[in-house]
Amino acid sequence: MFQTIALFGTGLIGGSFALALRRRHAHVRVVGVDRDAAAARRALELGIVDSIAVDVAQAIRGADLVFLAVPVAQTPGLLAQLLAGGLDEHTLITDAGSTKGDVVAAARAVLGARIDRFVPGHPIAGREVHGPDAALATLYDDRDVILTPLPENAAEAVERVHAAWTDCGARVTTMTVERHDRVLASVSHLPHLLSYALVAQIVDSADAALKFDLAGAGFRDFTRIAASSPEMWRDIALANREALLAELDAYLALVGHLRRSIDDGDGAALEALFDKASRTRQAWKRVEPHSSA
Amino acid sequence: MFQTIALFGTGLIGGSFALALRRRHAHVRVVGVDRDAAAARRALELGIVDSIAVDVAQAIRGADLVFLAVPVAQTPGLLAQLLAGGLDEHTLITDAGSTKGDVVAAARAVLGARIDRFVPGHPIAGREVHGPDAALATLYDDRDVILTPLPENAAEAVERVHAAWTDCGARVTTMTVERHDRVLASVSHLPHLLSYALVAQIVDSADAALKFDLAGAGFRDFTRIAASSPEMWRDIALANREALLAELDAYLALVGHLRRSIDDGDGAALEALFDKASRTRQAWKRVEPHSSA
Repeated sequence: MFQTIALFGTGLIGGSFALALRRRHAHVRVVGVDRDAAAARRALELGIVDSIAVDVAQAIRGADLVFLAVPVAQTPGLLAQLLAGGLDEHTLITDAGSTKGDVVAAARAVLGARIDRFVPGHPIAGREVHGPDAALATLYDDRDVILTPLPENAAEAVERVHAAWTDCGARVTTMTVERHDRVLASVSHLPHLLSYALVAQIVDSADAALKFDLAGAGFRDFTRIAASSPEMWRDIALANREALLAELDAYLALVGHLRRSIDDGDGAALEALFDKASRTRQAWKRVEPHSSA
Repeated sequence: MFQTIALFGTGLIGGSFALALRRRHAHVRVVGVDRDAAAARRALELGIVDSIAVDVAQAIRGADLVFLAVPVAQTPGLLAQLLAGGLDEHTLITDAGSTKGDVVAAARAVLGARIDRFVPGHPIAGREVHGPDAALATLYDDRDVILTPLPENAAEAVERVHAAWTDCGARVTTMTVERHDRVLASVSHLPHLLSYALVAQIVDSADAALKFDLAGAGFRDFTRIAASSPEMWRDIALANREALLAELDAYLALVGHLRRSIDDGDGAALEALFDKASRTRQAWKRVEPHSSA
Protein backbone atom coordinates (compact mmCIF):
# COMPACT_ATOMS: atom_id res chain seq x y z
CA MET A 1 0.00 0.00 0.00
CA PHE A 2 0.98 3.62 -0.43
CA GLN A 3 2.94 5.21 2.42
CA THR A 4 2.34 8.93 1.88
CA ILE A 5 -0.53 10.51 0.01
CA ALA A 6 -0.74 14.09 -1.19
CA LEU A 7 -4.46 14.83 -1.05
CA PHE A 8 -5.66 17.72 -3.22
CA GLY A 9 -9.18 18.51 -2.07
CA THR A 10 -10.02 17.53 1.51
CA GLY A 11 -13.81 17.45 1.21
CA LEU A 12 -16.37 14.72 0.66
CA ILE A 13 -14.55 12.75 -2.03
CA GLY A 14 -10.92 13.24 -1.03
CA GLY A 15 -11.56 13.20 2.70
CA SER A 16 -13.60 10.00 2.47
CA PHE A 17 -10.79 8.36 0.47
CA ALA A 18 -8.31 9.17 3.24
CA LEU A 19 -10.63 8.02 6.01
CA ALA A 20 -11.62 4.83 4.19
CA LEU A 21 -8.06 3.84 3.33
CA ARG A 22 -6.83 4.39 6.87
CA ARG A 23 -9.43 2.03 8.30
CA ARG A 24 -7.32 -0.77 6.81
CA HIS A 25 -3.96 0.97 6.60
CA ALA A 26 -3.51 3.05 9.72
CA HIS A 27 0.10 3.82 8.83
CA VAL A 28 -0.69 5.79 5.67
CA ARG A 29 0.29 9.45 6.03
CA VAL A 30 -1.94 12.04 4.36
CA VAL A 31 -0.81 15.57 3.52
CA GLY A 32 -3.72 17.84 2.63
CA VAL A 33 -4.00 20.75 0.21
CA ASP A 34 -7.21 22.71 -0.32
CA ARG A 35 -7.94 25.98 -2.10
CA ASP A 36 -10.31 26.62 0.83
CA ALA A 37 -7.97 27.18 3.81
CA ALA A 38 -10.80 26.74 6.32
CA ALA A 39 -11.66 23.35 4.79
CA ALA A 40 -8.04 22.24 5.11
CA ARG A 41 -7.95 23.25 8.79
CA ARG A 42 -11.21 21.44 9.41
CA ALA A 43 -9.82 18.31 7.70
CA LEU A 44 -6.85 18.48 10.06
CA GLU A 45 -9.14 18.83 13.10
CA LEU A 46 -11.19 15.85 11.96
CA GLY A 47 -8.10 13.68 11.52
CA ILE A 48 -8.68 13.34 7.78
CA VAL A 49 -5.16 14.63 7.09
CA ASP A 50 -2.02 14.50 9.22
CA SER A 51 -0.75 17.86 8.07
CA ILE A 52 -1.52 20.73 5.75
CA ALA A 53 1.02 21.70 3.11
CA VAL A 54 1.85 25.35 2.54
CA ASP A 55 2.38 24.79 -1.17
CA VAL A 56 2.30 22.10 -3.83
CA ALA A 57 6.04 21.40 -3.64
CA GLN A 58 5.82 20.68 0.07
CA ALA A 59 2.70 18.55 -0.37
CA ILE A 60 4.26 16.19 -2.88
CA ARG A 61 7.68 15.81 -1.26
CA GLY A 62 8.01 12.13 -0.44
CA ALA A 63 4.48 11.28 -1.61
CA ASP A 64 4.03 8.00 -3.48
CA LEU A 65 0.46 8.90 -4.50
CA VAL A 66 -1.12 12.17 -5.54
CA PHE A 67 -4.90 12.05 -5.24
CA LEU A 68 -6.77 14.81 -7.09
CA ALA A 69 -10.27 15.43 -5.72
CA VAL A 70 -10.96 18.80 -7.34
CA PRO A 71 -13.46 20.12 -9.93
CA VAL A 72 -12.37 18.73 -13.30
CA ALA A 73 -11.61 22.15 -14.78
CA GLN A 74 -8.83 22.61 -12.20
CA THR A 75 -7.01 19.42 -13.13
CA PRO A 76 -4.70 20.76 -15.90
CA GLY A 77 -3.45 23.63 -13.75
CA LEU A 78 -2.81 21.32 -10.82
CA LEU A 79 -0.91 18.82 -12.96
CA ALA A 80 1.35 21.61 -14.20
CA GLN A 81 1.96 22.65 -10.61
CA LEU A 82 2.92 19.09 -9.72
CA LEU A 83 5.65 19.10 -12.38
CA ALA A 84 6.79 22.59 -11.45
CA GLY A 85 6.87 21.50 -7.81
CA GLY A 86 9.34 18.72 -8.58
CA LEU A 87 7.10 15.65 -8.68
CA ASP A 88 9.17 12.49 -8.28
CA GLU A 89 9.04 10.35 -11.40
CA HIS A 90 7.92 7.33 -9.38
CA THR A 91 4.94 9.07 -7.77
CA LEU A 92 1.60 7.83 -9.05
CA ILE A 93 -1.26 10.23 -9.73
CA THR A 94 -4.95 9.40 -9.74
CA ASP A 95 -8.05 11.55 -9.78
CA ALA A 96 -11.75 11.44 -8.94
CA GLY A 97 -13.11 13.53 -11.80
CA SER A 98 -16.63 12.88 -13.09
CA THR A 99 -15.46 13.08 -16.70
CA LYS A 100 -12.42 11.35 -18.11
CA GLY A 101 -11.87 12.29 -21.78
CA ASP A 102 -11.07 15.90 -21.03
CA VAL A 103 -8.98 15.06 -17.97
CA VAL A 104 -6.91 12.54 -19.93
CA ALA A 105 -6.41 14.93 -22.85
CA ALA A 106 -5.25 17.64 -20.45
CA ALA A 107 -3.00 15.20 -18.60
CA ARG A 108 -1.35 14.09 -21.84
CA ALA A 109 -0.72 17.68 -22.82
CA VAL A 110 0.72 18.64 -19.44
CA LEU A 111 2.50 15.46 -18.37
CA GLY A 112 3.97 14.42 -21.73
CA ALA A 113 5.97 11.21 -21.36
CA ARG A 114 5.07 11.03 -17.69
CA ILE A 115 1.44 10.26 -18.57
CA ASP A 116 2.31 6.66 -17.68
CA ARG A 117 2.11 7.55 -13.97
CA PHE A 118 -1.44 8.93 -14.23
CA VAL A 119 -4.20 6.36 -13.63
CA PRO A 120 -7.57 8.08 -14.15
CA GLY A 121 -10.43 7.19 -11.82
CA HIS A 122 -13.99 8.09 -10.90
CA PRO A 123 -15.74 7.04 -7.69
CA ILE A 124 -19.54 7.03 -8.08
CA ALA A 125 -20.49 8.14 -4.63
CA GLY A 126 -21.82 11.68 -4.61
CA ARG A 127 -23.87 13.04 -1.76
CA GLU A 128 -25.86 16.27 -1.47
CA VAL A 129 -23.46 17.54 1.18
CA HIS A 130 -19.83 18.47 0.78
CA GLY A 131 -16.73 19.57 2.63
CA PRO A 132 -14.61 17.75 5.24
CA ASP A 133 -17.57 17.38 7.60
CA ALA A 134 -19.38 15.35 4.95
CA ALA A 135 -16.49 12.90 4.56
CA LEU A 136 -17.24 9.35 5.72
CA ALA A 137 -14.94 6.38 6.23
CA THR A 138 -17.82 4.27 4.85
CA LEU A 139 -18.61 6.39 1.79
CA TYR A 140 -17.16 3.92 -0.69
CA ASP A 141 -18.37 0.70 0.92
CA ASP A 142 -20.06 -1.31 -1.85
CA ARG A 143 -19.95 1.69 -4.16
CA ASP A 144 -18.64 1.55 -7.72
CA VAL A 145 -15.33 3.09 -8.68
CA ILE A 146 -14.42 3.22 -12.35
CA LEU A 147 -10.78 3.22 -13.48
CA THR A 148 -9.98 4.08 -17.08
CA PRO A 149 -6.37 2.86 -17.43
CA LEU A 150 -4.31 4.32 -20.24
CA PRO A 151 -2.26 2.30 -22.73
CA GLU A 152 0.84 3.91 -21.25
CA ASN A 153 0.10 2.75 -17.68
CA ALA A 154 2.23 -0.11 -16.40
CA ALA A 155 0.10 -2.95 -15.03
CA GLU A 156 1.71 -2.39 -11.62
CA ALA A 157 0.55 1.23 -11.54
CA VAL A 158 -3.05 0.29 -12.30
CA GLU A 159 -2.95 -2.53 -9.77
CA ARG A 160 -1.78 -0.26 -6.97
CA VAL A 161 -4.58 2.27 -7.53
CA HIS A 162 -7.07 -0.58 -7.94
CA ALA A 163 -5.95 -2.10 -4.63
CA ALA A 164 -6.27 1.22 -2.82
CA TRP A 165 -9.91 1.55 -3.90
CA THR A 166 -10.66 -2.07 -3.05
CA ASP A 167 -9.23 -1.43 0.41
CA CYS A 168 -11.60 1.55 0.67
CA GLY A 169 -14.46 -0.94 0.36
CA ALA A 170 -15.32 -0.13 -3.27
CA ARG A 171 -16.17 -2.35 -6.25
CA VAL A 172 -13.70 -1.44 -8.97
CA THR A 173 -14.63 -1.62 -12.66
CA THR A 174 -12.24 -0.78 -15.49
CA MET A 175 -13.23 0.48 -18.93
CA THR A 176 -12.03 2.80 -21.64
CA VAL A 177 -12.20 6.55 -21.26
CA GLU A 178 -14.71 6.77 -24.11
CA ARG A 179 -17.06 4.18 -22.66
CA HIS A 180 -16.89 5.83 -19.24
CA ASP A 181 -17.92 9.17 -20.67
CA ARG A 182 -20.81 7.70 -22.68
CA VAL A 183 -22.12 5.68 -19.73
CA LEU A 184 -21.92 8.58 -17.31
CA ALA A 185 -23.51 11.00 -19.79
CA SER A 186 -26.46 8.63 -19.88
CA VAL A 187 -27.04 7.80 -16.22
CA SER A 188 -25.67 10.90 -14.51
CA HIS A 189 -24.92 13.96 -16.62
CA LEU A 190 -28.17 13.98 -18.62
CA PRO A 191 -30.43 13.55 -15.56
CA HIS A 192 -28.63 16.43 -13.82
CA LEU A 193 -29.24 18.67 -16.84
CA LEU A 194 -32.92 17.66 -17.00
CA SER A 195 -33.44 18.19 -13.28
CA TYR A 196 -31.82 21.64 -13.28
CA ALA A 197 -33.97 22.56 -16.29
CA LEU A 198 -37.23 21.57 -14.60
CA VAL A 199 -36.57 23.74 -11.55
CA ALA A 200 -35.41 26.65 -13.73
CA GLN A 201 -38.56 26.39 -15.84
CA ILE A 202 -40.84 26.56 -12.80
CA VAL A 203 -38.97 29.51 -11.24
CA ASP A 204 -39.72 31.64 -14.28
CA SER A 205 -43.30 30.48 -14.87
CA ALA A 206 -46.70 31.81 -13.83
CA ASP A 207 -47.86 30.62 -10.40
CA ALA A 208 -44.27 29.68 -9.45
CA ALA A 209 -44.86 30.10 -5.70
CA LEU A 210 -48.05 28.04 -5.83
CA LYS A 211 -46.29 25.32 -7.83
CA PHE A 212 -43.45 25.01 -5.33
CA ASP A 213 -46.00 24.99 -2.48
CA LEU A 214 -47.92 22.11 -3.97
CA ALA A 215 -45.02 20.07 -5.35
CA GLY A 216 -44.88 16.69 -3.65
CA ALA A 217 -42.65 13.68 -3.19
CA GLY A 218 -42.20 12.97 -6.91
CA PHE A 219 -40.92 16.49 -7.49
CA ARG A 220 -38.71 16.24 -4.40
CA ASP A 221 -36.93 13.15 -5.71
CA PHE A 222 -36.74 14.22 -9.37
CA THR A 223 -35.16 17.55 -8.41
CA ARG A 224 -32.89 16.46 -5.58
CA ILE A 225 -29.88 16.61 -7.93
CA ALA A 226 -30.84 20.13 -9.01
CA ALA A 227 -29.42 21.25 -5.65
CA SER A 228 -25.94 20.15 -6.82
CA SER A 229 -22.96 22.47 -7.27
CA PRO A 230 -23.47 24.76 -10.30
CA GLU A 231 -19.71 25.09 -10.80
CA MET A 232 -19.09 21.37 -10.80
CA TRP A 233 -21.91 20.64 -13.23
CA ARG A 234 -21.01 23.50 -15.55
CA ASP A 235 -17.55 21.93 -15.79
CA ILE A 236 -18.95 18.45 -16.37
CA ALA A 237 -21.41 19.58 -19.05
CA LEU A 238 -18.63 21.29 -20.98
CA ALA A 239 -15.99 18.64 -20.35
CA ASN A 240 -18.23 15.83 -21.58
CA ARG A 241 -19.94 17.90 -24.24
CA GLU A 242 -19.81 15.40 -27.09
CA ALA A 243 -21.22 12.40 -25.21
CA LEU A 244 -23.74 14.54 -23.34
CA LEU A 245 -25.12 16.11 -26.53
CA ALA A 246 -25.42 12.68 -28.15
CA GLU A 247 -27.40 11.41 -25.16
CA LEU A 248 -29.50 14.55 -25.04
CA ASP A 249 -30.38 14.34 -28.73
CA ALA A 250 -31.44 10.71 -28.40
CA TYR A 251 -33.51 11.67 -25.38
CA LEU A 252 -35.17 14.58 -27.16
CA ALA A 253 -36.10 12.25 -30.02
CA LEU A 254 -37.72 9.83 -27.58
CA VAL A 255 -39.58 12.62 -25.78
CA GLY A 256 -40.72 13.92 -29.18
CA HIS A 257 -42.17 10.47 -29.84
CA LEU A 258 -43.96 10.55 -26.48
CA ARG A 259 -45.25 14.01 -27.27
CA ARG A 260 -46.83 12.74 -30.49
CA SER A 261 -48.40 9.81 -28.64
CA ILE A 262 -50.02 12.22 -26.17
CA ASP A 263 -51.15 14.56 -28.94
CA ASP A 264 -52.62 11.63 -30.90
CA GLY A 265 -54.32 10.19 -27.80
CA ASP A 266 -52.37 6.97 -28.36
CA GLY A 267 -52.79 5.43 -24.92
CA ALA A 268 -51.39 2.06 -25.99
CA ALA A 269 -48.06 3.59 -27.08
CA LEU A 270 -47.81 5.58 -23.86
CA GLU A 271 -48.63 2.62 -21.67
CA ALA A 272 -46.13 0.38 -23.51
CA LEU A 273 -43.30 2.84 -22.89
CA PHE A 274 -44.32 3.56 -19.28
CA ASP A 275 -44.66 -0.16 -18.62
CA LYS A 276 -41.20 -0.95 -19.98
CA ALA A 277 -39.68 1.81 -17.87
CA SER A 278 -41.64 0.88 -14.76
CA ARG A 279 -40.71 -2.81 -14.89
CA THR A 280 -37.07 -1.93 -15.48
CA ARG A 281 -36.93 0.58 -12.66
CA GLN A 282 -38.67 -1.77 -10.22
CA ALA A 283 -36.16 -4.53 -11.01
CA TRP A 284 -33.18 -2.19 -10.71
CA LYS A 285 -30.75 -2.68 -7.84
CA ARG A 286 -31.38 -0.49 -4.86
CA VAL A 287 -28.70 2.03 -3.93
CA GLU A 288 -29.44 3.09 -0.39
CA PRO A 289 -28.51 6.58 0.67
CA HIS A 290 -25.69 6.93 3.18
CA SER A 291 -27.00 8.09 6.49
CA SER A 292 -25.77 11.51 7.46
CA ALA A 293 -24.63 10.20 10.81
CA MET B 1 -69.16 14.98 9.83
CA PHE B 2 -70.37 12.34 7.40
CA GLN B 3 -72.01 9.25 8.89
CA THR B 4 -71.65 6.66 6.12
CA ILE B 5 -69.09 6.70 3.34
CA ALA B 6 -69.18 4.61 0.19
CA LEU B 7 -65.51 4.10 -0.60
CA PHE B 8 -64.71 3.18 -4.20
CA GLY B 9 -61.10 2.01 -4.22
CA THR B 10 -59.80 0.62 -0.93
CA GLY B 11 -56.07 1.02 -1.58
CA LEU B 12 -53.47 3.62 -0.66
CA ILE B 13 -55.53 6.75 -1.32
CA GLY B 14 -59.02 5.59 -0.41
CA GLY B 15 -57.93 3.36 2.46
CA SER B 16 -55.81 6.12 4.00
CA PHE B 17 -58.76 8.52 3.78
CA ALA B 18 -60.92 6.08 5.73
CA LEU B 19 -58.23 5.39 8.34
CA ALA B 20 -57.34 9.07 8.73
CA LEU B 21 -60.92 10.24 9.10
CA ARG B 22 -61.75 7.58 11.68
CA ARG B 23 -58.88 8.68 13.92
CA ARG B 24 -61.06 11.71 14.73
CA HIS B 25 -64.50 10.32 13.91
CA ALA B 26 -64.63 6.75 15.13
CA HIS B 27 -68.36 6.55 14.42
CA VAL B 28 -68.04 6.96 10.63
CA ARG B 29 -69.13 3.80 8.79
CA VAL B 30 -67.24 2.88 5.62
CA VAL B 31 -68.59 0.56 2.96
CA GLY B 32 -65.92 -0.59 0.53
CA VAL B 33 -66.06 -1.37 -3.19
CA ASP B 34 -63.01 -2.46 -5.18
CA ARG B 35 -62.65 -3.92 -8.68
CA ASP B 36 -59.99 -6.14 -7.06
CA ALA B 37 -61.97 -8.50 -4.79
CA ALA B 38 -58.84 -9.57 -2.91
CA ALA B 39 -58.03 -5.93 -2.13
CA ALA B 40 -61.53 -5.39 -0.77
CA ARG B 41 -61.22 -8.45 1.49
CA ARG B 42 -57.84 -7.25 2.70
CA ALA B 43 -59.28 -3.80 3.46
CA LEU B 44 -61.95 -5.50 5.56
CA GLU B 45 -59.33 -7.55 7.43
CA LEU B 46 -57.30 -4.41 8.12
CA GLY B 47 -60.32 -2.54 9.47
CA ILE B 48 -60.18 0.03 6.69
CA VAL B 49 -63.81 -0.71 5.78
CA ASP B 50 -66.64 -2.05 7.91
CA SER B 51 -68.20 -4.04 5.11
CA ILE B 52 -67.85 -4.85 1.44
CA ALA B 53 -70.73 -4.11 -0.89
CA VAL B 54 -71.76 -6.66 -3.49
CA ASP B 55 -72.72 -3.96 -5.98
CA VAL B 56 -72.84 -0.22 -6.41
CA ALA B 57 -76.49 0.05 -5.39
CA GLN B 58 -75.78 -1.65 -2.07
CA ALA B 59 -72.67 0.46 -1.47
CA ILE B 60 -74.43 3.78 -1.82
CA ARG B 61 -77.59 2.94 0.10
CA GLY B 62 -77.69 5.35 3.03
CA ALA B 63 -74.27 6.88 2.20
CA ASP B 64 -73.95 10.61 2.71
CA LEU B 65 -70.56 10.69 0.93
CA VAL B 66 -69.25 8.79 -2.08
CA PHE B 67 -65.44 8.87 -2.23
CA LEU B 68 -63.94 7.91 -5.59
CA ALA B 69 -60.32 6.72 -5.32
CA VAL B 70 -59.98 5.08 -8.73
CA PRO B 71 -57.89 5.71 -11.87
CA VAL B 72 -59.30 8.83 -13.52
CA ALA B 73 -60.39 7.01 -16.67
CA GLN B 74 -62.86 4.94 -14.60
CA THR B 75 -64.64 7.96 -13.16
CA PRO B 76 -67.30 8.50 -15.87
CA GLY B 77 -68.41 4.85 -15.80
CA LEU B 78 -68.61 4.87 -12.01
CA LEU B 79 -70.64 8.09 -11.94
CA ALA B 80 -73.14 6.54 -14.35
CA GLN B 81 -73.37 3.50 -12.08
CA LEU B 82 -74.06 5.74 -9.09
CA LEU B 83 -77.08 7.24 -10.85
CA ALA B 84 -78.25 3.86 -12.12
CA GLY B 85 -77.84 2.50 -8.58
CA GLY B 86 -80.27 5.07 -7.19
CA LEU B 87 -77.93 7.64 -5.66
CA ASP B 88 -79.81 9.80 -3.18
CA GLU B 89 -79.96 13.41 -4.32
CA HIS B 90 -78.49 14.60 -1.03
CA THR B 91 -75.41 12.38 -1.19
CA LEU B 92 -72.19 14.28 -1.83
CA ILE B 93 -69.53 12.92 -4.18
CA THR B 94 -65.84 13.73 -4.14
CA ASP B 95 -62.86 12.18 -5.84
CA ALA B 96 -59.08 11.91 -5.57
CA GLY B 97 -58.16 12.05 -9.25
CA SER B 98 -54.80 13.51 -10.28
CA THR B 99 -56.42 15.50 -13.09
CA LYS B 100 -59.53 17.60 -12.75
CA GLY B 101 -60.55 19.08 -16.13
CA ASP B 102 -61.42 15.72 -17.67
CA VAL B 103 -63.08 14.45 -14.50
CA VAL B 104 -65.26 17.55 -14.24
CA ALA B 105 -66.22 17.41 -17.93
CA ALA B 106 -67.19 13.76 -17.57
CA ALA B 107 -69.08 14.48 -14.36
CA ARG B 108 -71.06 17.27 -16.00
CA ALA B 109 -71.96 15.00 -18.91
CA VAL B 110 -73.03 12.12 -16.68
CA LEU B 111 -74.54 13.89 -13.67
CA GLY B 112 -76.36 16.70 -15.50
CA ALA B 113 -78.18 18.93 -13.00
CA ARG B 114 -76.82 16.87 -10.13
CA ILE B 115 -73.29 18.17 -10.79
CA ASP B 116 -73.90 20.45 -7.78
CA ARG B 117 -73.29 17.47 -5.46
CA PHE B 118 -69.84 16.69 -6.92
CA VAL B 119 -66.93 18.48 -5.20
CA PRO B 120 -63.72 17.58 -7.09
CA GLY B 121 -60.56 16.97 -5.06
CA HIS B 122 -56.95 15.85 -5.33
CA PRO B 123 -54.79 14.77 -2.38
CA ILE B 124 -51.08 15.18 -3.15
CA ALA B 125 -49.76 12.23 -1.24
CA GLY B 126 -48.61 9.47 -3.55
CA ARG B 127 -46.26 6.72 -2.41
CA GLU B 128 -44.40 4.09 -4.42
CA VAL B 129 -46.51 1.36 -2.83
CA HIS B 130 -50.20 0.72 -3.30
CA GLY B 131 -53.10 -1.42 -2.13
CA PRO B 132 -54.81 -1.65 1.29
CA ASP B 133 -51.56 -2.70 3.00
CA ALA B 134 -50.00 0.61 1.95
CA ALA B 135 -52.81 2.67 3.50
CA LEU B 136 -51.78 4.79 6.49
CA ALA B 137 -53.86 6.74 8.99
CA THR B 138 -51.09 9.36 8.85
CA LEU B 139 -50.77 9.60 5.06
CA TYR B 140 -52.40 13.02 4.82
CA ASP B 141 -50.87 14.62 7.91
CA ASP B 142 -49.44 17.97 6.78
CA ARG B 143 -49.96 17.01 3.15
CA ASP B 144 -51.69 19.24 0.59
CA VAL B 145 -55.15 18.48 -0.69
CA ILE B 146 -56.50 20.59 -3.53
CA LEU B 147 -60.23 21.12 -3.96
CA THR B 148 -61.53 22.62 -7.21
CA PRO B 149 -65.08 23.64 -6.31
CA LEU B 150 -67.53 24.13 -9.15
CA PRO B 151 -69.79 27.16 -9.61
CA GLU B 152 -72.75 24.84 -9.07
CA ASN B 153 -71.55 23.61 -5.65
CA ALA B 154 -73.36 25.02 -2.64
CA ALA B 155 -70.96 26.49 -0.09
CA GLU B 156 -72.20 23.91 2.42
CA ALA B 157 -71.16 21.04 0.13
CA VAL B 158 -67.64 22.40 -0.32
CA GLU B 159 -67.31 23.07 3.39
CA ARG B 160 -68.23 19.52 4.33
CA VAL B 161 -65.64 17.99 2.01
CA HIS B 162 -63.09 20.60 3.13
CA ALA B 163 -63.74 19.71 6.80
CA ALA B 164 -63.34 15.99 6.13
CA TRP B 165 -59.89 16.55 4.64
CA THR B 166 -58.88 18.91 7.42
CA ASP B 167 -59.91 16.24 9.91
CA CYS B 168 -57.64 13.82 7.99
CA GLY B 169 -54.73 16.09 8.94
CA ALA B 170 -54.36 17.72 5.52
CA ARG B 171 -53.77 21.32 4.44
CA VAL B 172 -56.62 22.17 2.05
CA THR B 173 -56.14 24.62 -0.84
CA THR B 174 -58.89 25.58 -3.27
CA MET B 175 -58.39 26.73 -6.85
CA THR B 176 -60.01 26.51 -10.25
CA VAL B 177 -59.95 23.32 -12.27
CA GLU B 178 -57.80 24.97 -14.92
CA ARG B 179 -55.20 26.24 -12.49
CA HIS B 180 -55.01 22.84 -10.80
CA ASP B 181 -54.31 21.12 -14.09
CA ARG B 182 -51.63 23.63 -15.10
CA VAL B 183 -49.88 23.48 -11.73
CA LEU B 184 -49.91 19.69 -11.59
CA ALA B 185 -48.74 19.36 -15.19
CA SER B 186 -45.72 21.42 -14.17
CA VAL B 187 -44.67 19.86 -10.86
CA SER B 188 -45.95 16.31 -11.28
CA HIS B 189 -47.08 15.16 -14.70
CA LEU B 190 -44.10 16.49 -16.66
CA PRO B 191 -41.47 15.05 -14.29
CA HIS B 192 -43.15 11.66 -14.48
CA LEU B 193 -43.02 11.76 -18.28
CA LEU B 194 -39.35 12.80 -18.23
CA SER B 195 -38.40 10.12 -15.72
CA TYR B 196 -40.15 7.34 -17.63
CA ALA B 197 -38.42 8.54 -20.81
CA LEU B 198 -34.94 8.42 -19.29
CA VAL B 199 -35.32 4.82 -18.15
CA ALA B 200 -36.85 3.80 -21.49
CA GLN B 201 -33.97 5.42 -23.37
CA ILE B 202 -31.34 3.53 -21.37
CA VAL B 203 -33.14 0.17 -21.72
CA ASP B 204 -32.85 0.37 -25.49
CA SER B 205 -29.33 1.80 -25.68
CA ALA B 206 -25.88 0.26 -26.10
CA ASP B 207 -24.27 -0.84 -22.82
CA ALA B 208 -27.66 -0.84 -21.08
CA ALA B 209 -26.64 -3.44 -18.49
CA LEU B 210 -23.41 -1.60 -17.71
CA LYS B 211 -25.28 1.69 -17.38
CA PHE B 212 -27.78 0.27 -14.90
CA ASP B 213 -24.92 -1.34 -12.97
CA LEU B 214 -23.07 1.93 -12.60
CA ALA B 215 -26.02 4.26 -12.08
CA GLY B 216 -25.80 5.88 -8.66
CA ALA B 217 -27.83 7.89 -6.19
CA GLY B 218 -28.71 10.71 -8.61
CA PHE B 219 -30.21 8.22 -11.06
CA ARG B 220 -32.00 6.46 -8.22
CA ASP B 221 -33.80 9.61 -7.14
CA PHE B 222 -34.48 10.99 -10.62
CA THR B 223 -36.07 7.72 -11.73
CA ARG B 224 -37.94 6.75 -8.57
CA ILE B 225 -41.21 7.95 -10.13
CA ALA B 226 -40.54 5.87 -13.26
CA ALA B 227 -41.57 2.87 -11.14
CA SER B 228 -45.12 4.31 -10.94
CA SER B 229 -48.22 2.63 -12.35
CA PRO B 230 -48.19 2.71 -16.19
CA GLU B 231 -52.00 2.58 -16.33
CA MET B 232 -52.46 5.49 -13.96
CA TRP B 233 -49.92 7.66 -15.76
CA ARG B 234 -51.22 6.79 -19.22
CA ASP B 235 -54.61 8.03 -18.03
CA ILE B 236 -53.16 11.20 -16.51
CA ALA B 237 -51.09 12.04 -19.61
CA LEU B 238 -54.16 11.75 -21.83
CA ALA B 239 -56.59 13.35 -19.38
CA ASN B 240 -54.41 16.43 -18.90
CA ARG B 241 -53.12 16.49 -22.47
CA GLU B 242 -53.51 20.19 -23.14
CA ALA B 243 -51.75 21.48 -20.02
CA LEU B 244 -49.10 18.76 -20.17
CA LEU B 245 -48.19 19.53 -23.78
CA ALA B 246 -47.96 23.24 -22.99
CA GLU B 247 -45.57 22.49 -20.11
CA LEU B 248 -43.60 20.04 -22.20
CA ASP B 249 -43.18 22.50 -25.05
CA ALA B 250 -41.93 25.20 -22.71
CA TYR B 251 -39.54 22.69 -21.17
CA LEU B 252 -38.24 21.55 -24.56
CA ALA B 253 -37.57 25.17 -25.48
CA LEU B 254 -35.56 25.65 -22.29
CA VAL B 255 -33.61 22.43 -22.82
CA GLY B 256 -32.94 23.53 -26.41
CA HIS B 257 -31.45 26.72 -24.99
CA LEU B 258 -29.27 24.68 -22.62
CA ARG B 259 -28.24 22.47 -25.53
CA ARG B 260 -27.00 25.51 -27.45
CA SER B 261 -25.10 26.77 -24.42
CA ILE B 262 -23.29 23.43 -24.16
CA ASP B 263 -22.63 23.31 -27.88
CA ASP B 264 -21.27 26.88 -27.80
CA GLY B 265 -19.15 26.18 -24.71
CA ASP B 266 -21.01 28.99 -22.93
CA GLY B 267 -20.11 28.12 -19.34
CA ALA B 268 -21.48 31.38 -17.95
CA ALA B 269 -24.98 30.69 -19.33
CA LEU B 270 -24.91 27.14 -18.00
CA GLU B 271 -23.72 28.19 -14.59
CA ALA B 272 -26.33 30.97 -14.35
CA LEU B 273 -29.16 28.53 -15.03
CA PHE B 274 -27.73 25.81 -12.76
CA ASP B 275 -27.16 28.35 -10.02
CA LYS B 276 -30.72 29.65 -10.18
CA ALA B 277 -32.08 26.12 -10.03
CA SER B 278 -29.72 25.05 -7.27
CA ARG B 279 -30.50 27.99 -5.00
CA THR B 280 -34.21 27.52 -5.57
CA ARG B 281 -34.11 23.80 -4.87
CA GLN B 282 -32.00 24.23 -1.75
CA ALA B 283 -34.47 26.77 -0.37
CA TRP B 284 -37.49 24.61 -1.19
CA LYS B 285 -39.54 23.15 1.65
CA ARG B 286 -38.66 19.62 2.55
CA VAL B 287 -41.30 16.95 2.06
CA GLU B 288 -40.18 14.00 4.10
CA PRO B 289 -41.10 10.53 2.90
CA HIS B 290 -43.59 8.58 4.99
CA SER B 291 -41.93 5.71 6.73
CA SER B 292 -43.20 2.35 5.55
CA ALA B 293 -43.82 1.30 9.13
